[in-house]
Amino acid sequence: MLRTRCLLRALRFCSSAPCPRHKPSGTLSVRDALRAQHTSGERVKVQGWIRSVRSQKEVLFLHINDGSSLESLQIVADASFDCRELAFGSSVEVQGQLVKSPSKRQNVELKAENITVIGNCDAKAFPIKYKERHPLEYLRQYPHLRCRTNVLGSILRVRSEATAAIHSFFKDRGFVHIHTPVITSNDCEGAGELFQVEPSSKIKAPEGNFFDVPAFLTVSGQLHLEVMSGAFTQVFTFGPTFRAENSQSRRHLAEFYMVEAEISFIENLQDLTQIMEDLFKSTTMMVLSNCPEDVELCHKFLAPGQKWGADLQTEHEKYLVEHCGNIPVFVINYPLALKPFYMRDNEDGPQHTVAAVDLLVPRVGELFGGSLREERYHFLEQQLARSGLTEAYQWYLDLRRFGSVPHGGFGMGFERYLQCILGVDNIKDVIPFPRFTHSCLL
Amino acid sequence: MLRTRCLLRALRFCSSAPCPRHKPSGTLSVRDALRAQHTSGERVKVQGWIRSVRSQKEVLFLHINDGSSLESLQIVADASFDCRELAFGSSVEVQGQLVKSPSKRQNVELKAENITVIGNCDAKAFPIKYKERHPLEYLRQYPHLRCRTNVLGSILRVRSEATAAIHSFFKDRGFVHIHTPVITSNDCEGAGELFQVEPSSKIKAPEGNFFDVPAFLTVSGQLHLEVMSGAFTQVFTFGPTFRAENSQSRRHLAEFYMVEAEISFIENLQDLTQIMEDLFKSTTMMVLSNCPEDVELCHKFLAPGQKWGADLQTEHEKYLVEHCGNIPVFVINYPLALKPFYMRDNEDGPQHTVAAVDLLVPRVGELFGGSLREERYHFLEQQLARSGLTEAYQWYLDLRRFGSVPHGGFGMGFERYLQCILGVDNIKDVIPFPRFTHSCLL
Repeated sequence: MLRTRCLLRALRFCSSAPCPRHKPSGTLSVRDALRAQHTSGERVKVQGWIRSVRSQKEVLFLHINDGSSLESLQIVADASFDCRELAFGSSVEVQGQLVKSPSKRQNVELKAENITVIGNCDAKAFPIKYKERHPLEYLRQYPHLRCRTNVLGSILRVRSEATAAIHSFFKDRGFVHIHTPVITSNDCEGAGELFQVEPSSKIKAPEGNFFDVPAFLTVSGQLHLEVMSGAFTQVFTFGPTFRAENSQSRRHLAEFYMVEAEISFIENLQDLTQIMEDLFKSTTMMVLSNCPEDVELCHKFLAPGQKWGADLQTEHEKYLVEHCGNIPVFVINYPLALKPFYMRDNEDGPQHTVAAVDLLVPRVGELFGGSLREERYHFLEQQLARSGLTEAYQWYLDLRRFGSVPHGGFGMGFERYLQCILGVDNIKDVIPFPRFTHSCLL
Repeated sequence: MLRTRCLLRALRFCSSAPCPRHKPSGTLSVRDALRAQHTSGERVKVQGWIRSVRSQKEVLFLHINDGSSLESLQIVADASFDCRELAFGSSVEVQGQLVKSPSKRQNVELKAENITVIGNCDAKAFPIKYKERHPLEYLRQYPHLRCRTNVLGSILRVRSEATAAIHSFFKDRGFVHIHTPVITSNDCEGAGELFQVEPSSKIKAPEGNFFDVPAFLTVSGQLHLEVMSGAFTQVFTFGPTFRAENSQSRRHLAEFYMVEAEISFIENLQDLTQIMEDLFKSTTMMVLSNCPEDVELCHKFLAPGQKWGADLQTEHEKYLVEHCGNIPVFVINYPLALKPFYMRDNEDGPQHTVAAVDLLVPRVGELFGGSLREERYHFLEQQLARSGLTEAYQWYLDLRRFGSVPHGGFGMGFERYLQCILGVDNIKDVIPFPRFTHSCLL
């Protein structure tokens, strides 16, 4: 223990040095200012961008947003402030007193004593216009600016919140997080829609491939997770995956995120679907409790006609049981002939299925895909032989030679999850920088 | 609020259905079994892999590990159990009573009533040999099996713990998490060591690039984070980055992970270095408190001679102040001519530096790199012109036209961080599947 104790001591030692908060004292985020309890004239500083300006005879009202919340902070200033530079989109620093607001629209407002314009905004050239609600299609042309609108702000805050919730979900349940590789020499599902990776032409090595073998961008971390579930029992990954699909559909991207989990000692699909369901619910509860206004904004403006989330009645339960209706539905046991080599043979006679499961959700389609994996050496060997993959997947067979266990796993499309809970029609609007055929802006 | 409330109600409704824990009741992870308080004969089930077998006249001792902790659980069984299949590396399920151990080596042991071998292990073919401590170089040949050794198990558990700690650090401080793109049309630092991305030759579109422009694997998320810091003030990303460097050094990989943050309204390097320092300390404290045994194992076997973490004395403080000695050191203000276009000009006369900062740590070298960014339109315009990048970076100039703010950020090499705190000499041993010149296994 000596060395560890030393490391601890060193850390404690350093920590005794003064350790200021990130924001200089007195500087508040808009979110914290809006939540302030003691509003009896506390002097604070707030920094952000102007979202609205309203000039009256005696007073000037500004709304300042810094992205910490959907809501902006109202600034009340003397009309003597020169407001020529106080324009929509400009960045400002405001010092003043946080007071209870007389208006019902907000609890708190900031009585400005000093307003400094930090950076002007060229309103004519700025593609985001004051008080206009721009269509999402229009905003997609400006990936470097669209995050400054209410709607993209809300979507990306929800994305961040959901990311944190997913990490917590797995950590709380004892899963080990694994960074599965992005560059791989595997072609997991035998799909042809792969991106290949080579050093850029400028420096291409004359003697062949950089990695000695052809290398691709991953389409799934599953096989690598299976390696790890053989050591850590429960593992997950949450990273980018790729398809060189020639598609511009509202449900496909060339680069998207997947949450994938793999669990050893699982013997039936019910145990697997339970985890999928828990993940969905737990993440959604966390999002709803931490950013209800952001979710509300999306529901109000993006999905007013969407019925998903309507209250469940007995008749809906019936629909669910009958595997149809307007709520998420698990579909299980697919024909073996249609599925990849690694899925577990159900040995169920003439129909011959594998233990696969998909979760389908309204409007978005497949949200989760999962299966039990073939853990039996000879079954897997035969499947690989049938697919002509025996040589390439010796390492994968090895996992069944050395202490094999029944196991299963799933993947959830993260953008589709966001589309589903927020009612966003086009997948390009739930990722910061969408990549698809003919488009790789920035 | 109607729709949000409906979504909430729907979730609650579903939640009223039976919601079993992931492990069937009575099944414990090894970690939970080892921590069990009530050991008066509780009947439990444990699943895992055999790490050791010791057969005595009347009793059989097994050690079972499931990757939930470094420590294994001792199983005590009647010698009548057929132990031919109970071999190192096999997977088993053990049912029995959790009791207080008479030995001082562990608090708890499992008195077996039933042992089922789930999967045999072909000991002859298994590259990991019973009771041998294999060199890390040897284990690198088996990326699909090395995670089953104590040392890789410990390193990857620490990696997982550090990942969670980093997400928590930023979330607790109000940073928004951003998935910056992996595929990009930017060439951030003008470096030539890029990987290019194209659909694999099988499906290469005849009419040119898939994205219409050449596309590369990202070398940094910085510029994309700067977009987002203009909306959310404080943002971070934690994802893969790439260099097509022809290097097999112990400090370089072709694919590695970076933690990057960008903060608006920061005006000096001190505020930036404070966040870097806090991130390092907070993450390390969390790792030390959640997996001390794993850290200890690494320190004991991998870095017995490493002095990092030795207690700090006044004379060390002196070294630190003098910017040398065997502890981490910040180096600030580099010559402008050596640094990329986006760093902030210090306007400091003939020496002419930019506000850049590196954190150097013993044995690992550069762990963090950061800078204030040039937020002044005309300064940036000149720098871009000098680098011949004006046209390509119009969008980046835009960020300075529309409400520009002083800001700065940094990146931390995640693998180097792990090397640093664990004393792991070669970077290939702190990532699950290392990629470097001539090697892309699995």
